[in-house]
Amino acid sequence: MDLKSLIRDIPDFPKPGITFRDITTLLSNPEGLRYAIDTLTQKCKDAGLVPDYIVGMESRGFIFGTPLAYTLNAGFVPVRKPGKLPAAVHAVEYELEYGTDRLEIHQDAIDGRSRVLIVDDLIATGGTAKATADLLEQIGCQVLGFSFIIELTELEGRKKLPDVPIITLVQY
Amino acid sequence: MDLKSLIRDIPDFPKPGITFRDITTLLSNPEGLRYAIDTLTQKCKDAGLVPDYIVGMESRGFIFGTPLAYTLNAGFVPVRKPGKLPAAVHAVEYELEYGTDRLEIHQDAIDGRSRVLIVDDLIATGGTAKATADLLEQIGCQVLGFSFIIELTELEGRKKLPDVPIITLVQY
Repeated sequence: MDLKSLIRDIPDFPKPGITFRDITTLLSNPEGLRYAIDTLTQKCKDAGLVPDYIVGMESRGFIFGTPLAYTLNAGFVPVRKPGKLPAAVHAVEYELEYGTDRLEIHQDAIDGRSRVLIVDDLIATGGTAKATADLLEQIGCQVLGFSFIIELTELEGRKKLPDVPIITLVQY
Repeated sequence: MDLKSLIRDIPDFPKPGITFRDITTLLSNPEGLRYAIDTLTQKCKDAGLVPDYIVGMESRGFIFGTPLAYTLNAGFVPVRKPGKLPAAVHAVEYELEYGTDRLEIHQDAIDGRSRVLIVDDLIATGGTAKATADLLEQIGCQVLGFSFIIELTELEGRKKLPDVPIITLVQY
C-alpha cells in the first residue's frame, strides 16, 4: 500500500516555510490505519524486538503506541508534558530550537530492567525521541528500538539516537 | 478480570478533594490493556455498533481510540485542542466549571453521513463527550454510541448525552 498517498502535505504549518506532514488522513482511512499498524508490528517482529513496554510521547505518540502494545502483547506507558501525570514522576529537560521543553514519566511505571520500544508518529530532529531514551536509560531500562510512521531524513534525527533498530514506514 | 484492581486512586489530584482515577497502571499491564480493548470491542459488537469512524478526544481519548478503530475496522479521527490540527477545522465551544473550552475537528475528516463512535478514557460530567457529539451532529454525522473505560456515575454525565448506547467497563 502506498502510505505516502494517504499523508497530506500542509504548507506553512505550524509556521511559514515548514511543510507539515499530516497523518490524520492516514488515520481516518481504515485500510491505511490497519496496514500501518500491521506493518509496524511485522517490522518489529522481523527486527527481533520483543518489548515489555511500548513508550509513547504525548500526544501523537499515543495514537500508534497503544495499538502496537496491543499487537505486540506489551504494556503501554505514556510520556507526558509537565503536570499531566498524577503520581510521582521522573523528568527530563531537552533543548528546542528556542528554549527548552520537559517530559515526564511515572516513577513506578517501568521496572528498571525492562525492555522498551519508543513509539512516535514522526521523527524530525530526533530531540523528543532522544530525550525519551535518556529518561528511560536513567531509570535503567533497555531501549530496544524506535518506531515511527514518518522520517524526515534530511534532519538526520536518527544520528541522535542510540545504536538500536529504528523502524520507519515513510521517508521524506 | 478485575479491571478496578488495575486502576489507581490518586487523592487530591488535580486539586484538593478530587480523587483521580489513574488508568496508567491499567495501560502498563499487558493483560489488562488487552482485556480492556477486547472487552470494549466485544461490547460494541454486542450492541450492534458498526462505526465508519472512531472519534477520540485529545489526548487520553487517543489511547483507546486507535486500538478500537483497529479491532472494529474503522478509521480514527482525532478531536483536538485549538491550534493543533493543521488544516481547516470545525470548532465547538463548551462550558467548564470556570470559563469555556474549545474542541476542533478537521472539516474534511468525516463525510457528513458517516456513523461514528465517540471514545474517551473516562466520563465525568460528560461535558467533553457532549461537545464532541454536538460537533459531529453539526456536520451531519450519526453518533452511534459512546465508549469509556471509566464512568463516574454520581456525576450523571450520561444524562447529558444523546439516547444511544453508552459502553463503560468500570463504574465508581
